[in-house]
Amino acid sequence: METEWTAREIAEKIYALDEAVYRSLDSTLGRVYTQERESCLLAITDHIQRRKIHILRSEMTLILNMIRTVENRSVQAQLLDEFDAVMEQLAQLPPELTPADILDRELADLKDFSQNGNRWILCVGREFGSAGTEIAFRLARRLDLAFYDKEIFELAQKQERPLWDGAQTGGGRKGTILRELSQNHGLPSRDAAFFTLSEQIQDLARSKSCVIVGRCGDAILRQSRIPHISVFIEAPFPLRVKRTMEMKRLPYREASRYVKKMDRQHRDYYHAYTGKRWGGPTNYDLCINSAIFGIEGTVELLCKLLPLPPKVEEKSGE
Amino acid sequence: METEWTAREIAEKIYALDEAVYRSLDSTLGRVYTQERESCLLAITDHIQRRKIHILRSEMTLILNMIRTVENRSVQAQLLDEFDAVMEQLAQLPPELTPADILDRELADLKDFSQNGNRWILCVGREFGSAGTEIAFRLARRLDLAFYDKEIFELAQKQERPLWDGAQTGGGRKGTILRELSQNHGLPSRDAAFFTLSEQIQDLARSKSCVIVGRCGDAILRQSRIPHISVFIEAPFPLRVKRTMEMKRLPYREASRYVKKMDRQHRDYYHAYTGKRWGGPTNYDLCINSAIFGIEGTVELLCKLLPLPPKVEEKSGE
Repeated sequence: METEWTAREIAEKIYALDEAVYRSLDSTLGRVYTQERESCLLAITDHIQRRKIHILRSEMTLILNMIRTVENRSVQAQLLDEFDAVMEQLAQLPPELTPADILDRELADLKDFSQNGNRWILCVGREFGSAGTEIAFRLARRLDLAFYDKEIFELAQKQERPLWDGAQTGGGRKGTILRELSQNHGLPSRDAAFFTLSEQIQDLARSKSCVIVGRCGDAILRQSRIPHISVFIEAPFPLRVKRTMEMKRLPYREASRYVKKMDRQHRDYYHAYTGKRWGGPTNYDLCINSAIFGIEGTVELLCKLLPLPPKVEEKSGE
Repeated sequence: METEWTAREIAEKIYALDEAVYRSLDSTLGRVYTQERESCLLAITDHIQRRKIHILRSEMTLILNMIRTVENRSVQAQLLDEFDAVMEQLAQLPPELTPADILDRELADLKDFSQNGNRWILCVGREFGSAGTEIAFRLARRLDLAFYDKEIFELAQKQERPLWDGAQTGGGRKGTILRELSQNHGLPSRDAAFFTLSEQIQDLARSKSCVIVGRCGDAILRQSRIPHISVFIEAPFPLRVKRTMEMKRLPYREASRYVKKMDRQHRDYYHAYTGKRWGGPTNYDLCINSAIFGIEGTVELLCKLLPLPPKVEEKSGE
């Protein structure tokens, strides 16, 4: 019954802490545990044993909120020490009491760029009109990274030119990838353009640090297990319409229709080739509302967020 | 016709740059502008004049990608200077050519904490099982901020105790807020509990820096124009079910049902009182997939990302 004894012991400490805080406080806040001592202890012990973590945490937080209002700094420091000691003891109870983590080891491993020769890949999805492409472009410039978006992929395709030095032109691994993709996704085998693109993006990500906008880059790299960070840029619909009116010099109705049409195209494209919902937050590591931060603000935010590309190493290795 | 001439001039610079890069490059990449000179110049001029920014940017980016492969460093530096000069000239064309910003000045102003006596408020929404509450709790401890969630609001309500020193107990501004809310939202006037909560949250945010989890905190503060940061924590459904199985010791089917039920409750609650879609990315400043970063990783990320509360000033001012 060691656990039970420990639970009771901790309960006593919590109760005593609450009492001590109340006494050292000239406050209207009162106590957390207002009932008769033994009833309180039974309830706390029960919460510890039955792992009612959210209740314990709330009660501890109320005590902490009160400690913050203690004016005498040395008394406050002492109470904080006691508080920390109790929290520590709670954390050392059998592991079930500590909240389970939500980390997906397999997904988290996809952030380890050392697995890809320290090449640093950022995939950016965006709602039309959210300035996502502009943000990605400026970020790439700021970090001195190559930049690829739909226009560039299409331009290269139209001109039948490779996208970067050392790009494989056709053949090679294409057959394997075709098989992999059709096995794994049940994609219509007629859609050769997407397979070529998928191969291009994988080769690209294996050859250099870069920023890739759209084109299901995130899904393609996740599927092929190439480390990358994926971000989705969105903004409220009315603001995207407003920006489209300015950019394309369109009246409201047409701009509104245009934004809807482009969103639909992106959504359909993404869904057709990945089976996933475009813009669904859990497809990405992070979604940013660009209307809050603006173009430059979002670039700043992403710079803070992202592990900086290992530029120095890459350059000195050339 | 000054603009036309400038457009033509810039077009010539772009064409010349492409040519210079091609010449100084021993590469398989070739040139961006492969057609006869005059045709290319007409096309580029047209793109500048008709503000086809995305095409211009793609072409410039292809040129930049090539400059990056130039091995002679001093030649590369010179080409980069020329590239920057052209980009600068493009940016100085009439404002329509520079991409319009997406910033919403009114929303952005809600990040200016000086408007609220430098009180720093973070509202955290979360999907059930995403560890959002745990993340918010740890963040509050890390930043030494008061923490409020559903349990704490309910505990205070049950015990009929104020939540913090100086909290108004009933009366006061409630009447006004009731009117405001029913005017602005057409909410059912019977729902007094939400009005009380809304009043509590506004008073709270006007009195101290804190972290508020759930309870439509973001919508309430946005509506009452109190500066705050809002973050939504989400994670893929299967991982949230897995975590719930561990935390609540439930078998798969029950955990799955439980997560769905809790999500539904949150969604209905948020929608009933705000008229907005719960978890809709554009309701928040930022959405984070906690499965990618884990609990501690998400706390770290938020610390890196967010403007930190002006703790030092606050303390020294006491």
